[in-house]
Amino acid sequence: MDSNKEHKKTIKGINPAFTKGSKLQKKQPLDITILANDIIAGNHTALSKGITLVESTVLKHQEQAQLLIEKCLAHANASIRIGITGVPGVGKSTFIESFGSYLTGIGKKVAVLAVDPSSSLSHGSILGDKTRMSELSQDKNAFIRPSASGDSLGGVARKTREAIILCEAAGFDTIIIETVGVGQSETVVHSMVDFFLLLKLAGAGDELQGIKRGIIEMADTIVINKADGKNERPARLAKTAFAKALHLYPPKDSSWTPKVSTCSALEHKGISEIWKDILSYKTLTQENGYFISKRHEQNTYWLLQTIENSLKENFYRDPVVKERLPILLEQLSKNTISPFIAARELLALRKNDH
Amino acid sequence: MDSNKEHKKTIKGINPAFTKGSKLQKKQPLDITILANDIIAGNHTALSKGITLVESTVLKHQEQAQLLIEKCLAHANASIRIGITGVPGVGKSTFIESFGSYLTGIGKKVAVLAVDPSSSLSHGSILGDKTRMSELSQDKNAFIRPSASGDSLGGVARKTREAIILCEAAGFDTIIIETVGVGQSETVVHSMVDFFLLLKLAGAGDELQGIKRGIIEMADTIVINKADGKNERPARLAKTAFAKALHLYPPKDSSWTPKVSTCSALEHKGISEIWKDILSYKTLTQENGYFISKRHEQNTYWLLQTIENSLKENFYRDPVVKERLPILLEQLSKNTISPFIAARELLALRKNDH
Repeated sequence: MDSNKEHKKTIKGINPAFTKGSKLQKKQPLDITILANDIIAGNHTALSKGITLVESTVLKHQEQAQLLIEKCLAHANASIRIGITGVPGVGKSTFIESFGSYLTGIGKKVAVLAVDPSSSLSHGSILGDKTRMSELSQDKNAFIRPSASGDSLGGVARKTREAIILCEAAGFDTIIIETVGVGQSETVVHSMVDFFLLLKLAGAGDELQGIKRGIIEMADTIVINKADGKNERPARLAKTAFAKALHLYPPKDSSWTPKVSTCSALEHKGISEIWKDILSYKTLTQENGYFISKRHEQNTYWLLQTIENSLKENFYRDPVVKERLPILLEQLSKNTISPFIAARELLALRKNDH
Repeated sequence: MDSNKEHKKTIKGINPAFTKGSKLQKKQPLDITILANDIIAGNHTALSKGITLVESTVLKHQEQAQLLIEKCLAHANASIRIGITGVPGVGKSTFIESFGSYLTGIGKKVAVLAVDPSSSLSHGSILGDKTRMSELSQDKNAFIRPSASGDSLGGVARKTREAIILCEAAGFDTIIIETVGVGQSETVVHSMVDFFLLLKLAGAGDELQGIKRGIIEMADTIVINKADGKNERPARLAKTAFAKALHLYPPKDSSWTPKVSTCSALEHKGISEIWKDILSYKTLTQENGYFISKRHEQNTYWLLQTIENSLKENFYRDPVVKERLPILLEQLSKNTISPFIAARELLALRKNDH
């Protein structure tokens, strides 16, 4: 640690890229070894810069980012990764602020990242503004980063997943990944976290209506937020309804029985109980081997996913494919061609093209 | 029609491939135009031969099969495609026998196909034996075909989907696709049918336990089979439990409210009611446009799926990839490489290889 600090002191003067916030300076060459060491030493500015590198679409930056991740990898992984989802209005920011502050209060280092596929369109619909979590954003043991933007959910997801590695290398032991629940974002977040938390509000009657398909099955815990004031009773009723519903689902591979609880993020009630549940989950799955096997599976999934996305992108980007595909889709909709014949034609076109 | 019959008469003598059952004769050249016409004329032997062609792994047969499908396409589609799933022991064969016989009794022409990814291993675990459906298999208005074998579920699915086209061209207006529920077979069957029927047995207590994730959400109707004798009361209770459970799910894109019913395939009770439900579904979705838009979506899905499977197959079949992938997976499990770096390396290896 001392040598790291020393190192930082020395380079501060000679590496201006380091001192100028998280923006990547065009003129000064970025020393990836120095940046990696600074991240590993826990420097937040360096971490921000690293994530900016990971998110950059510039080819050179992408190469540097891979080098950076390689250097950080050995220092990552000693963490719990928690996914948090819920519809807009459920109070995700307030919950994360309350939950995160509780965690830093008990000595945890908390990084908050987000997967928001809509943010590239709406210029940041979640976590775009740190004032949303004003307390946590000023906490020295917390690090909040808005969602990466990108032209595909896969792209946003890749960047978030690489950002996780950097955060872990920087010493953050609790990684919270927020999702807005647009499109397939929950599935993507689920595939990069250890524990998945679904935030809900008490409503009247059919509690499960309006929840996207499959979300309930992903949840390791369901937390009914805003259980305060006159909402307390409806929240308790909702808790019972969800507990019954969960009972209908098949057991999870993790052997974990999903929990349902109520909380008031506003009044900081029920927060410590949620953390206790997460710790119980961690203990159980570390003992039965699920925790580590799930991370391995996720890694393999991401390897194959990255390859397949790249193969598809290259294929559909091909000018001959671009020209022919809409014509075949038109024929397909008129039922004058079978999907298999159309596919064969496109594949053959591409082959001849190369 | 008359000209078709005339045509058949003429060629019967000169195309020996036609008369010799469904096996493809090696010596005699197969005239695809004749075969197509015979299929369209409703000849079961020709249909069998056509499906054998579709299922063949010989490259020349595959080319002939595509030609055949092209010729049959314009005559296909005027049908309802029904997927039927349920765990072994639920009585799928007896149900299909009873249901299919009811349908031919009211003037329908019924084709029964199967998707069984395990059949290539176990040499036909379902529909391998026509004696399973002894009555239906002797019915002139029914056509039963065992599951295609193949080394991948995708392969089996493609063959089944092409077989549907041939069956429809042969005048079958009701296509039943059976699945054993192994692996992802229900999802695959769901993506090729208009209506999805889940067959269940009454059990004690938690009716939904043991059902694979997502199956309930796919079902357009749940039928509790073997509702006879002392099973009648448990079946009624199960019906109530399922109806309640279904109520918890979000509404379907089709606007159809999934039904739950009981039946006794053995005693032929409740069968006509199931058919009525299917007709109601057809009317509803044809009126609201979902029926046709779902078929279009399925066609597009199969086009893209076929392309992507082919891209992946070619990639993973490449010797350089085959050699390097296990090494990278090993490094991945030791966390010494990130999935994205590993993917990039494999993609680069392949590119240099070409």
